[in-house]
Amino acid sequence: MTTPKNFKLSELLVDLDVEVKGDPHCLIKGIAPIQQAGAGELTFLNNVAYRKYLATTQASAVILTAKDAKECPVHAVISANPYFAYAKVAAFFQKNKVIQPGIHSSAVIDESATIDSSAAISAHCFIGQGVKIGARVVIGPNTTIEEFAEIGDDTVIASNVSIYSAVKIGQRNTIASGVVIGSIGFGIAQAEGKWHKVPQLGTVLIGDDVDIGANTTIDRGALENTIIENGVKLDNLIQIGHNVQIGAHTVMAGCVAVAGTVTIGKHCMIGGATCFAGHITICDKVMITGMSSVTKSIIEPGIYSSGVVGMVPNLEFRKNNARFHRLENLYERVKKLEDTLKDDH
Amino acid sequence: MTTPKNFKLSELLVDLDVEVKGDPHCLIKGIAPIQQAGAGELTFLNNVAYRKYLATTQASAVILTAKDAKECPVHAVISANPYFAYAKVAAFFQKNKVIQPGIHSSAVIDESATIDSSAAISAHCFIGQGVKIGARVVIGPNTTIEEFAEIGDDTVIASNVSIYSAVKIGQRNTIASGVVIGSIGFGIAQAEGKWHKVPQLGTVLIGDDVDIGANTTIDRGALENTIIENGVKLDNLIQIGHNVQIGAHTVMAGCVAVAGTVTIGKHCMIGGATCFAGHITICDKVMITGMSSVTKSIIEPGIYSSGVVGMVPNLEFRKNNARFHRLENLYERVKKLEDTLKDDH
Amino acid sequence: MTTPKNFKLSELLVDLDVEVKGDPHCLIKGIAPIQQAGAGELTFLNNVAYRKYLATTQASAVILTAKDAKECPVHAVISANPYFAYAKVAAFFQKNKVIQPGIHSSAVIDESATIDSSAAISAHCFIGQGVKIGARVVIGPNTTIEEFAEIGDDTVIASNVSIYSAVKIGQRNTIASGVVIGSIGFGIAQAEGKWHKVPQLGTVLIGDDVDIGANTTIDRGALENTIIENGVKLDNLIQIGHNVQIGAHTVMAGCVAVAGTVTIGKHCMIGGATCFAGHITICDKVMITGMSSVTKSIIEPGIYSSGVVGMVPNLEFRKNNARFHRLENLYERVKKLEDTLKDDH
Repeated sequence: MTTPKNFKLSELLVDLDVEVKGDPHCLIKGIAPIQQAGAGELTFLNNVAYRKYLATTQASAVILTAKDAKECPVHAVISANPYFAYAKVAAFFQKNKVIQPGIHSSAVIDESATIDSSAAISAHCFIGQGVKIGARVVIGPNTTIEEFAEIGDDTVIASNVSIYSAVKIGQRNTIASGVVIGSIGFGIAQAEGKWHKVPQLGTVLIGDDVDIGANTTIDRGALENTIIENGVKLDNLIQIGHNVQIGAHTVMAGCVAVAGTVTIGKHCMIGGATCFAGHITICDKVMITGMSSVTKSIIEPGIYSSGVVGMVPNLEFRKNNARFHRLENLYERVKKLEDTLKDDH
Repeated sequence: MTTPKNFKLSELLVDLDVEVKGDPHCLIKGIAPIQQAGAGELTFLNNVAYRKYLATTQASAVILTAKDAKECPVHAVISANPYFAYAKVAAFFQKNKVIQPGIHSSAVIDESATIDSSAAISAHCFIGQGVKIGARVVIGPNTTIEEFAEIGDDTVIASNVSIYSAVKIGQRNTIASGVVIGSIGFGIAQAEGKWHKVPQLGTVLIGDDVDIGANTTIDRGALENTIIENGVKLDNLIQIGHNVQIGAHTVMAGCVAVAGTVTIGKHCMIGGATCFAGHITICDKVMITGMSSVTKSIIEPGIYSSGVVGMVPNLEFRKNNARFHRLENLYERVKKLEDTLKDDH
Repeated sequence: MTTPKNFKLSELLVDLDVEVKGDPHCLIKGIAPIQQAGAGELTFLNNVAYRKYLATTQASAVILTAKDAKECPVHAVISANPYFAYAKVAAFFQKNKVIQPGIHSSAVIDESATIDSSAAISAHCFIGQGVKIGARVVIGPNTTIEEFAEIGDDTVIASNVSIYSAVKIGQRNTIASGVVIGSIGFGIAQAEGKWHKVPQLGTVLIGDDVDIGANTTIDRGALENTIIENGVKLDNLIQIGHNVQIGAHTVMAGCVAVAGTVTIGKHCMIGGATCFAGHITICDKVMITGMSSVTKSIIEPGIYSSGVVGMVPNLEFRKNNARFHRLENLYERVKKLEDTLKDDH
């Protein structure tokens, strides 16, 4: 669905705080790793482990720091943050890529759906009643978009994705394969020892520039909506419960579990496999290390952790683990020792 | 696929222990949150946070407690458990919703499959050899049901679901998008340092009134069957291993991992991200708090926990974590102190 | 898609270190559990719990130990490791099963794809530009294989699977439903408080005889490739981050999370729900118990653990948990006691 197109190096760098040492008019058709890049390709050098490839790179230009630029054999793009500059150039290519607009003949589209003529809808998609699809949206094969969902401009949805009814997705999102958005949350009411499903009447609202990783699930709200704000980045296999709100520019690594009605602030960083208990609030600018168990609200920015981490040989682990389960007893023995010594003095 | 249909308020409340203050014949077409409900809609009030919306609700009727009923401006349905009554009314609407029966022309159906004429099969479904689909079953787009599987009456299966061969699913189940039922479990045999797949000859049997959340996976049995009994509710991204048996009316929050050949009793409640080691048995009426590691059988009903929970600032965590890994040493030092003092006295 | 075919018992046992007591020419059409097997079926006895079925089994032959063989009422296949012998026979049937080759008329296949004439492509598959599909490959319904991916001979891919572009999969793999391979990893660069997606230019290379469980996700590499070597077995709902390398014959139980750029050696065994921090290396022949948090490299083979495991009643747990969060304080109190006693003596 894509074909390469050439851009002047300077076109790629508009709005970036960089300096070109070499020809700003040289033509660039794509990006590639430093050891693989060829003519017409731009690469970057950020990690010392790759510096050995600089002298012999076949790339047409390299983004790198002023220090590394001295040894650059081709056009150099000098940046204080080459990784970020490279991400921006990649985004430029993504935004300017040539997509073949159109709807594959095997897709099933409800006649009431509104699909921008620049969008690309792949084979075996299902697009339901009243759905709205924006400009330059790409939807992969076997993806289902149910009634009254809305997909903003430039959003890319991969294959085998399930978007439930009335979900609203903003612009420039990327949604990986197997993602489920708007599923019925875990709302259950107990009576006479049995559990009864409670309908979930809210939906999911997702802002702009959000990325959602493979097989991640986001439940619709029960009465209000589940909300994912602008710039949020979610890795793979994350569970977002009903009524959760995630603030702008917060990132979560893989396998995080967020129970229902949790509110997470802006600019947070959540380590992988962390688990949030329901009905708590995390303030802005909180960093939580991986595999933590978050059972209470956090009201001060900072770095937080829980659990016990670090591997030890199993025999050693078993001793400490057994001691853990007798900690209260150990505490009492220490207290008794203190009391005895106090009496002695 | 649904169009609203009106019911008398009293029709919705049959079998419920409620009292109507107002007109039991008023017509109700659906349910909605208290602050959004309009004419013809029923709502409920369960949570004090929503009481402020009661005076101005546009709903035609509200389910609420006797205490709140005094201030209800519209028809009141008085219940000791409004949340449960609301769940039952919602289930009534679900059961009585108008579905458009039929098989979408793009679905591929094996000629030997038996599909009730009241069922609705969506676009791009695949229904294999000998499959049986019951009355009023709804199957979402891009879902695959393999040979000899059976789906009971009134079960609703969402989009992109995978049901493997010979799986038996009961009545009134709801199965969310991305669910996989009957996959080949993790049966492997080691010989000469390599692992060899062992065939899984059992299947999965699922009872009635079971709900299964998005992207949850349930493996088929190795020699016997994997069994999910009536009324079980599973949240999203749960893993159920081969030969597992889950007792009736047990509920599990998201991201729980159950290894093979685990038996869990009836009326249990399992907190999110809890992990069960293989080959253990949990008795009835056990509640396990979130993120626990269950490595042994439990034979008494009660509330159980494991692990270490609760967030602290990372610096504090690192000190305690380091001390944990020296717990055996700390214990020995306390013991030595005790011995010294004993000698002294 | 399969029909039974008869084989002589001796044909099934070629290359296996077994002895037949009975007729090596008896015809076998399939395998089944000992209590269900009928005429023409082979079964095995490995677990004492099933010995009670031996005397009355209707199977034509049983794989079992020399000790159990004395009581075998039918043809006996004597093996020191019946479970492994059974796995090999099952693999023989899998390899020799009659598949109906061909491409379902509803599948959408790019004209530039190369599909072996012995492969079976199911309904609603999408096969992209330049894809190569080997001999006897089976691809389930609603599966998507994007441009330039390659699938080796005898690999079986289930329904609703997503294979991204340029992913290379070896021979004799089995890939369960909902699996996602080659998704864009969690590469993000921060600038001015916002996160920016970094393109992922590598792919995923998977060896031979690899099994991948339902809804597992494997991200493509950022600059290099993500690599899964021969004989690796991954259970369900596992997350493999970008640039990860997993050595040959390593196995992982369900819900394991592996962050980016982790290297895991050969012949490792990883317990369920274990979490690996990024950028670490685990040597060959490491066994890690379930629900561990692996935050540092491991350089010696052995059995390792972390965390705190074992269930206790919640009230007891809460006391020990509270004490854990005061461990540093307890340590200091013990130290003070030691100092006091030292002064005294």
